[in-house]
Amino acid sequence: MSAPDPGIAAQAWLDRLAQCSAPGPGVTRLPFTPEHRAALDVLCDLMQQAGLAVTLDDAGTLIGRRDGPEGAPTLLMGSHQDSVREGGAYDGIMGVVLPVLALQKLREDGVSLPFAVEVLAFADEEGVRFPTALMGPRVLAGRFDMAALDLCDSDGVSLRRAMEDFGLSPDRLPILKRDPAQILGWIEIHLEQGPVLEHAGAGLGVVTAICGIERHSATLRGQAAHAGTMPMTLRRDALAGASELVLAVEALARDTEGLLANIGTMQVRPGAVNAVPGEVALALEIRAPSDKLRARAAAELTRAGHDIAARRGLGLEMARSYDQPATPCAPQMITRLSDALAQLGHPALHLASGATHDSSAMAALCDIGMIFTRCRGGISHHPDEFVDPDAMAAGILALCHILRQTDPPQA
Amino acid sequence: MSAPDPGIAAQAWLDRLAQCSAPGPGVTRLPFTPEHRAALDVLCDLMQQAGLAVTLDDAGTLIGRRDGPEGAPTLLMGSHQDSVREGGAYDGIMGVVLPVLALQKLREDGVSLPFAVEVLAFADEEGVRFPTALMGPRVLAGRFDMAALDLCDSDGVSLRRAMEDFGLSPDRLPILKRDPAQILGWIEIHLEQGPVLEHAGAGLGVVTAICGIERHSATLRGQAAHAGTMPMTLRRDALAGASELVLAVEALARDTEGLLANIGTMQVRPGAVNAVPGEVALALEIRAPSDKLRARAAAELTRAGHDIAARRGLGLEMARSYDQPATPCAPQMITRLSDALAQLGHPALHLASGATHDSSAMAALCDIGMIFTRCRGGISHHPDEFVDPDAMAAGILALCHILRQTDPPQA
Repeated sequence: MSAPDPGIAAQAWLDRLAQCSAPGPGVTRLPFTPEHRAALDVLCDLMQQAGLAVTLDDAGTLIGRRDGPEGAPTLLMGSHQDSVREGGAYDGIMGVVLPVLALQKLREDGVSLPFAVEVLAFADEEGVRFPTALMGPRVLAGRFDMAALDLCDSDGVSLRRAMEDFGLSPDRLPILKRDPAQILGWIEIHLEQGPVLEHAGAGLGVVTAICGIERHSATLRGQAAHAGTMPMTLRRDALAGASELVLAVEALARDTEGLLANIGTMQVRPGAVNAVPGEVALALEIRAPSDKLRARAAAELTRAGHDIAARRGLGLEMARSYDQPATPCAPQMITRLSDALAQLGHPALHLASGATHDSSAMAALCDIGMIFTRCRGGISHHPDEFVDPDAMAAGILALCHILRQTDPPQA
Repeated sequence: MSAPDPGIAAQAWLDRLAQCSAPGPGVTRLPFTPEHRAALDVLCDLMQQAGLAVTLDDAGTLIGRRDGPEGAPTLLMGSHQDSVREGGAYDGIMGVVLPVLALQKLREDGVSLPFAVEVLAFADEEGVRFPTALMGPRVLAGRFDMAALDLCDSDGVSLRRAMEDFGLSPDRLPILKRDPAQILGWIEIHLEQGPVLEHAGAGLGVVTAICGIERHSATLRGQAAHAGTMPMTLRRDALAGASELVLAVEALARDTEGLLANIGTMQVRPGAVNAVPGEVALALEIRAPSDKLRARAAAELTRAGHDIAARRGLGLEMARSYDQPATPCAPQMITRLSDALAQLGHPALHLASGATHDSSAMAALCDIGMIFTRCRGGISHHPDEFVDPDAMAAGILALCHILRQTDPPQA
């Protein structure tokens, strides 16, 4: 009997895991819930079938370990088990299933590796239940702020309490910090959550960096007025000023390679059909794979906002409300992943990740590398999220290839 | 003892009337309420001091009449007694006080007129309490829809019930219809509610027309997307399309004499800082003193919206939700009012009214004419609404002049 197609096998496991969900459309699997427990049971089954030794650490990270030679360092792989509310069946969890299936295949093929491998299923990357996220990788990197244990979910349950009820000992988190000297690196495979690979006809891509993100809150203030009695020439229309800013943001990002910029919210006041808008509040978001590029764009758009306001006699308050630096992937990881894909006949398509991932936090511990899989229509965080089995099979084979090509640790 | 300045006298009456208000900032005087009753008592006092015979018709219109020669027709003047919630002390009610003071002055000066004059204080022009308005003038013109008597206020009290509790007999409204042959015309004096006169340094202006108004509901549909994963070149951003439309609306109205256009509401969906806007709903309002001009603007802006949508790959639904024709003032009234102002040394500044007034409904009965007074900062429908006594004094003198200049009725 021939081995089943690895993409089909991955889909079967992901179907089982998708059942581990709160009721409703799609997948809702928040950390430290019965659904989380159910998913860990399935993942444990999967990892054990692949010959991995399974443990659960006190951050709620499920770890499937394949030992290496005595004293050899460890290559880390994985992603997160949790989903957004009414999300899809692939985001995060696929990045746990595919490396386990890759290790299963290496075992079936009798391949030995000169290092240990651990596949990690982190509890919480999405940050939906608690106003914090990325606890698992932050703990490993020694960057977790223990004060976050006191943050509560919408039912008033603290993170600490939720973890204790899950059978964990959050006070022991500090001892989970890993020694960087013992870690070979981190590789995460994740769906792209965007349309770039599909648009390019590629199944896989190599991530160059996880974009930095900054957000600005802006309020344009003109003069509210009766739209029937205020002549056009005397208006100070905050919405007209905001509209110019929306178009300036779009134009700059369209014209700047790598830059993403968005105005996603806008509140118009007073907000009546017969009232000239006196005030518009909006939120601007800028993402770029390089912090320098992002800073330049922020300065240019702030200047554009003030120019528009001055020309129109509007007031403008604009302040940065959020700032998260870019995380470059390690150049040697990009090269290694690209070479592996090329050897398997995939074009070495490079792209930046506009979204944050567990890799962002793992970068504080070790070199990181990321592979994106194509997803249908670029749809994610939605029940329609879909990665076709061919792309998953390619991902598994690519991970096998990467594991076999990874340099043995230097003595 | 010299007569008091007529502007000071007007202000004193308006101060008394402003006390006839529900609690809270500014003036809140809704129809068929105790505040309405209190205002009628003050107006009755004012009218009687001016020698007018006072009656209350079954629409709640207080009528102060000065008889003319036997069988002579009647010139109608006036405005409305009601205010918006937390409105000002001038909107409407000033247009009752000033003509009464003008008639008082004519009486003091021993002037006889070859026609009768009635000053009307309509119950409800603002339409704040009931979802209908302009009952008083519509009844006089025979254009009132009796079905509106069943409309209810927010407490579930019908208009009919409110009127009956006020001591009126709404079933008798049809017999209040006036014979156009017996009406010389209608003159209303009202604050401008905009900044045009103040900006021009004029105290009074002559209204050429009450603008027609139309409103359009528009929804632009693109594709909501993750702002971190959707490349700029593949976005279908509904807000960027809406922004182009806002600027197209502004540009057309700025470039078209007499046209007013406004986008006053905008809802952005899904409305998250990290989401490319997939849908924007907005309301467009167009006002013009000529229906032809307004229709041309509506066609042009609808075309602009569809052009923008097509160029950006957006869907656009756009439908007219409201349509109210323009009401031109009678050319002979415009001429007569302009001549009177000119003879009093006022520049004959002409302007259209962007807001609706009792005059709009009176036009179905007779020729209408309107005078605007300057108001401070263009502010209206607000406690800060203010007309300075000099402008009111000029208004009273202008009304006296107009009454003395009005042609005797043709036999």
